[in-house]
Amino acid sequence: MKRHHPIVVLAPDSFKGSLDAGEACAAMATGLGRANAAIEIRACPMADGGEGTVNAVLSRQGDRHRLVVTGASGSARGADCAWLQRPTRPVVVIETAEVVGITDPVGMTLPVMKRSTRGVGELLLALLDAGVRHFMVGLGGTSTNDGGAGMLCALGLRLLDAAGRDLAPNPEGLRALDRVDPTALDPRLDEITLGILADVDSPLCGEQGATRMFGPQKGVGAGEVRELDGHLARYANLLEESLGRCAASCPGAGAAGGLGFALQLIGGNLCSGAEVIADLIELDDALGGADWALTGEGQSDAQTLRGKAPSVVARRAKAARVPVTLLSGAVDSSAQTELNCVFAGCFGLPAQPMSLADCVERASSLVTERAEQLARLWCCARAE
Amino acid sequence: MKRHHPIVVLAPDSFKGSLDAGEACAAMATGLGRANAAIEIRACPMADGGEGTVNAVLSRQGDRHRLVVTGASGSARGADCAWLQRPTRPVVVIETAEVVGITDPVGMTLPVMKRSTRGVGELLLALLDAGVRHFMVGLGGTSTNDGGAGMLCALGLRLLDAAGRDLAPNPEGLRALDRVDPTALDPRLDEITLGILADVDSPLCGEQGATRMFGPQKGVGAGEVRELDGHLARYANLLEESLGRCAASCPGAGAAGGLGFALQLIGGNLCSGAEVIADLIELDDALGGADWALTGEGQSDAQTLRGKAPSVVARRAKAARVPVTLLSGAVDSSAQTELNCVFAGCFGLPAQPMSLADCVERASSLVTERAEQLARLWCCARAE
Repeated sequence: MKRHHPIVVLAPDSFKGSLDAGEACAAMATGLGRANAAIEIRACPMADGGEGTVNAVLSRQGDRHRLVVTGASGSARGADCAWLQRPTRPVVVIETAEVVGITDPVGMTLPVMKRSTRGVGELLLALLDAGVRHFMVGLGGTSTNDGGAGMLCALGLRLLDAAGRDLAPNPEGLRALDRVDPTALDPRLDEITLGILADVDSPLCGEQGATRMFGPQKGVGAGEVRELDGHLARYANLLEESLGRCAASCPGAGAAGGLGFALQLIGGNLCSGAEVIADLIELDDALGGADWALTGEGQSDAQTLRGKAPSVVARRAKAARVPVTLLSGAVDSSAQTELNCVFAGCFGLPAQPMSLADCVERASSLVTERAEQLARLWCCARAE
Repeated sequence: MKRHHPIVVLAPDSFKGSLDAGEACAAMATGLGRANAAIEIRACPMADGGEGTVNAVLSRQGDRHRLVVTGASGSARGADCAWLQRPTRPVVVIETAEVVGITDPVGMTLPVMKRSTRGVGELLLALLDAGVRHFMVGLGGTSTNDGGAGMLCALGLRLLDAAGRDLAPNPEGLRALDRVDPTALDPRLDEITLGILADVDSPLCGEQGATRMFGPQKGVGAGEVRELDGHLARYANLLEESLGRCAASCPGAGAAGGLGFALQLIGGNLCSGAEVIADLIELDDALGGADWALTGEGQSDAQTLRGKAPSVVARRAKAARVPVTLLSGAVDSSAQTELNCVFAGCFGLPAQPMSLADCVERASSLVTERAEQLARLWCCARAE
């Protein structure tokens, strides 16, 4: 039953800190080509809503649209969206990491207490002006922790202190927050559908909330966590009361420094980022009739099976009866037993003792080498 | 054409510094069993003449004989041999690392200039007394650099200074060497056949010689190399003249600190250690009808293909049409292209960034984990 040329689907997520998903895919493809030039490669770079989401979508469909908006620290920056033409109305995929990404050095020039998601609101506004009403918003990889205040203010919300003065929509501004005024919120928000692509289930506040879980890695000081968490809770209470909606305790409200809260407040629905991307890149079509699939990410551990891109690839590959192998930057051996349930072999990048820094620096050639060796083994086992 | 249960040959060399070949084999077998309990495993621990040679042979045939002889630094120690009963006369496999091994802390108590291979001669003598005339002597992993002077003296040679006094058969003694007296050399040496199992082609002296190539790792000081090399050259000249034979410039004369020279001088023939061991463990029989083979060693690099155990396994597996995969502690990526010519996939132990020390410490569980993952991939590719 073996065709002359094997078909292999390459569906890695990005290797965070070293390769985006497209680069990981290309590196894998090079290795497979070296192992066996007859392999038909179907490249399907994956994403989960975080950095690389727009590029992953655009690798399969849609048009790239660049809009200039305000970055996390106030400077203007270009942000790419994927514009998907649909029979009725367009759907636009937005990636918040394109606006307030933690890997953007310019966006990181101000301390986290002064960073704002205003640019995300500007992006939505510009797209509303362009007639767009259907959005998919990828969360993840953001440098902000403002509860989405910046975004909501760009869309018309006012944050006011006790004297009725407008406050800056950032964590510092929220300190003096006395009341919110939603009357000028853009009325077109009532017409939208908005899918929130996230891989985080956290609520906005509390022990599992945005600030405690992800604040420190964005620069929230150990002594600031509790205070900022309290300010976000008050901000959320005021908003929920004035709008008559609840969102702060919903799963995913804590994603992207609380953008998940603000987006749910304006009607967004939390989706599995990786599942939506898998649909948008038509992964199931690629898997149809394939013989093998390779997926991967920077670091695979117990979290991988909780909805990360490789687990979604594995689930869909299983449905298509395609064995899928994991090739990640690193595989946490304590998660190996769980990972064994879904992957036909799990492999890391190093072929010898190696530091993390070397592994990151040489990631592309290591992915190529490892993919080549795996393909050599796979081809020879198949050919028997 | 696929049987219900796949047959896999495990033929690793030792992972130097962490696992002997038997342990490496056992660790691989555990991993394969976890991947697929139906796999029939044929365990064939390999060796190349160095440390582990006797145990590798005994894993397949022969009886263990322990003799007490003098270690490199003068203390008595037990040395195991493999006694192979043959229709005419027995063949005994000796491992010089069992007598003067570099991993023996007691043998390392004296400086290298005072260490001697006397015990190797004692071992041969005891076996000659027991009627043995056919020997295989594994070289490699020794702590000595005496040109085999100790061994020859144990067999009756005299090393004399200008005043006719006997000299200690070690590098220090060779300094005052004026002449040699071979008249008392054991006459039974004329009756022996002796295979020298080595993986080193070096001559005794010079740029590629024993002292320059391997002396420093045994403790020969940078300033002592040239002098000791000169003393060994004079010692060899005197011996060759008095015996009317040549050996110092033969390939392998520089193996095991010059034991290769002394053994060739008494009639030994240089063999490929790994090829002889492969014969003794009946590797070809194990490969017959097998579906896959795994081999490996501590570190694979360009040297691997120059007659090391994994390359011999690969050659024989190819002849038996069995694909063979390399699983080593580390694979040097600069040798990958060459290694690709003989191995169906080359893999190292780490699945994540990891120091050499961690890799060595966790070697057994890493071999198991990696073998399991490789077997999972191999089984699924096969099952397609």
